[in-house]
Amino acid sequence: MAREIIIIGSGAAGMTAASSARKTDPEAKITLFTEDTDIAYSPCVIPWAVEGKVTWEGIVMHTPEHYSESKKITVRTGTRAEAVSDADKTVTAAGKTYRYDSLVIATGSKVFIPPIRGTDLEGVFAVKTIRDGKAIQSYLRDVSRVAVCGAGVIGLEIALAFSSMGKDVTVVEMMDQVIPRIADRDMADQIQKYLEEKGIKFVMNVPIQSVNGTGRVSGVTAGGKEYPCETVIFATGVRADTDIPKELGFDIGQLGAVVVSPSLQPYKKGRIVPCVYVAGDVIQCVSAVMPGPTMSQLGSSAVKQGNVAGINAAGGKALFGPVASPWVSVIGEKQIAGTGLSLGLASWYGVDAVCGKAVGLTRARYYPGASEMVVKVLADSTSHRIIGAQMIAGEEVTGRIDWLTSAVISGITADDFLVRAENAYCPPTSMVKDVVISAVENLCAKLRVQ
Amino acid sequence: MAREIIIIGSGAAGMTAASSARKTDPEAKITLFTEDTDIAYSPCVIPWAVEGKVTWEGIVMHTPEHYSESKKITVRTGTRAEAVSDADKTVTAAGKTYRYDSLVIATGSKVFIPPIRGTDLEGVFAVKTIRDGKAIQSYLRDVSRVAVCGAGVIGLEIALAFSSMGKDVTVVEMMDQVIPRIADRDMADQIQKYLEEKGIKFVMNVPIQSVNGTGRVSGVTAGGKEYPCETVIFATGVRADTDIPKELGFDIGQLGAVVVSPSLQPYKKGRIVPCVYVAGDVIQCVSAVMPGPTMSQLGSSAVKQGNVAGINAAGGKALFGPVASPWVSVIGEKQIAGTGLSLGLASWYGVDAVCGKAVGLTRARYYPGASEMVVKVLADSTSHRIIGAQMIAGEEVTGRIDWLTSAVISGITADDFLVRAENAYCPPTSMVKDVVISAVENLCAKLRVQ
Repeated sequence: MAREIIIIGSGAAGMTAASSARKTDPEAKITLFTEDTDIAYSPCVIPWAVEGKVTWEGIVMHTPEHYSESKKITVRTGTRAEAVSDADKTVTAAGKTYRYDSLVIATGSKVFIPPIRGTDLEGVFAVKTIRDGKAIQSYLRDVSRVAVCGAGVIGLEIALAFSSMGKDVTVVEMMDQVIPRIADRDMADQIQKYLEEKGIKFVMNVPIQSVNGTGRVSGVTAGGKEYPCETVIFATGVRADTDIPKELGFDIGQLGAVVVSPSLQPYKKGRIVPCVYVAGDVIQCVSAVMPGPTMSQLGSSAVKQGNVAGINAAGGKALFGPVASPWVSVIGEKQIAGTGLSLGLASWYGVDAVCGKAVGLTRARYYPGASEMVVKVLADSTSHRIIGAQMIAGEEVTGRIDWLTSAVISGITADDFLVRAENAYCPPTSMVKDVVISAVENLCAKLRVQ
Repeated sequence: MAREIIIIGSGAAGMTAASSARKTDPEAKITLFTEDTDIAYSPCVIPWAVEGKVTWEGIVMHTPEHYSESKKITVRTGTRAEAVSDADKTVTAAGKTYRYDSLVIATGSKVFIPPIRGTDLEGVFAVKTIRDGKAIQSYLRDVSRVAVCGAGVIGLEIALAFSSMGKDVTVVEMMDQVIPRIADRDMADQIQKYLEEKGIKFVMNVPIQSVNGTGRVSGVTAGGKEYPCETVIFATGVRADTDIPKELGFDIGQLGAVVVSPSLQPYKKGRIVPCVYVAGDVIQCVSAVMPGPTMSQLGSSAVKQGNVAGINAAGGKALFGPVASPWVSVIGEKQIAGTGLSLGLASWYGVDAVCGKAVGLTRARYYPGASEMVVKVLADSTSHRIIGAQMIAGEEVTGRIDWLTSAVISGITADDFLVRAENAYCPPTSMVKDVVISAVENLCAKLRVQ
């Protein structure tokens, strides 16, 4: 009899799990339940869609009909999984109960909205779904002033989108730098300065206290001061959506997300749960850099996890490794990327980090079109292992941060990296000694004299 | 008393050795002898300079005066090192004998010109120095037909430069594919097709037999057929310039270049030679992929080796690791890159390779400006280790080939790469699952069913 696989959630993890399960078992019956109405799109692209650089139709890769016809996967949109029993191996949705052989839970995350007054006013939005994005785009037509709460990468990307649309934009951030937690201040300051030059205002180091207005937004208060605006966007981060895992009694980790095995199975009181796999923003990961937990709520992580969960759910064998969580954000003409530990994350592990830095170019000095490239690499002062990196340039950042990610994951020391690392060179695409190498040279010099 | 360091050669290895020696020992007396008149430029850029995309002045990074004034390094251009004695620790140049405490030999390579009739005719050029480049540029003014001998990356880059300048270009290659040895045929064929569409003609699988003409070039003969042309460019590869090392009795390796230790010291009858360091195109390297020798005659390798030689010559400590030799070439709108072993190189080591391949995009599907990205990854069929990779795309190739280089160097298996590798994602700079990951997925599937 065909294996019955049920998947809850239609984000990157859920959709990938469905496709990978199908590839692994061509005969399985695969059903996916989702509360969302749009599926198979990347929420990361919403800032560009709001700005109109890409179309809403364009960003949806596939329809439920596509999954049904080309992959024999049943996608039930607008359908909440009301109850799950891992003892009975059943999911109840839309009043009907379905039996499963394997279950994938990929319920993702919810946008964290701070518990303050006024977040229910008309003109308040989160940036999470296509629905949010379309609503923002439509509302903005009659609006001239926008406050963005949260200066993480999504906050900055959408702030710049608004600014490019001619809006007056104020970003409110409770930390003392933009892109807090994952970027170091010296790198983040370059991005803030760039955005300030584009006319975006920043209110730093104060939490948002209230959204003000009668019926609809008229301003926000932060640090005791009111900033008038007609729209407020919350880009204040996400929290794992653990409703179903908690109902099932799955172990929740220190970071408030589901603890999973490398096979992506959850635990109940320390015992692994059979036939259930959990993937995406809802899980807690293991750091590849230092012993300890970490979150990896990235689209790329969700796809990787969804693949592992889908393969395992369909009877295949796949493991999910520890994570360095590389990220990249495009902010106008700037690209900023990071991997592994920032100084802030290192301090969370109690790790003393030493930093090396180099400034160079993305092409040979004399080759037209080069942009400045700043690379920062971190090592821990004890083992000298490379534990993280960040970079900013106008181009060619993504592959280099993936390169440094592999250095972090491999556990190589800064000195050994210098002995072994090599870079490809062609005048139109790099310096003869890549800026990454120069940054590690600087790091090794710092490690020698620390 | 100040340490006396002598360096022979002003290519990337020699100049870097001088600068690194200076950084390591601020007091040393550093003298560099070179037969060349221009120093501190990248020969890799000559095709773009000939075409006029960059200026001849622009590509020279520094003058001898700059080295003298800012680094206290004496650069003697147009000065041949006539004799070297490692017993006496002396170098004789321009009739004078200089004592050294440390010697760096970075004599580089010579262009290999096949031993055929007519290579001394007017209109025959190599592509090695600025002098060559300027001579080609000047000669081409009155020329409409050019034959390029050798379809390696330099041959193809300069063939396209000529074609862009409106010349009629024929490339003659003795192997049955372009970019032989380091690129696989399926990848190379894409580049050949692209160049053919630009109007460049290819004569494949036949060696050049003669250059014809009276006084000046009137054609070349290959495969028994004459191809009329007024200029012939030899881009037929380089050979280590081992004149000085051979006179000194240094051990020459299987590949015809100087055998060196990880500290870049040469050997005499198996005994390491003190106080002498050899760097750049003149040395034989150790492969990071498979036990055995390899050549790494790349600008990036020369810089890395020059750095190690310079540090050691100045009393510091540095080691040069085994090499995967990543390379990248920009051919019009295409970038092609490779690292580690190609199928051809694998067969030289007697290694049976399994290939995985994926075709994707450099950005998210819906994001404007994406170009196709083809990634091929090779593993050895026994250990399943990743032994090489190649890719073609319109952008963002360099960092990714450096990423795969680190995979090759680390000795990771294809399956372990899939468990551990992560890629940064942002719609304008990558797919959510990078094409590199997809290629390794394909490779793992192939390894399972081999």
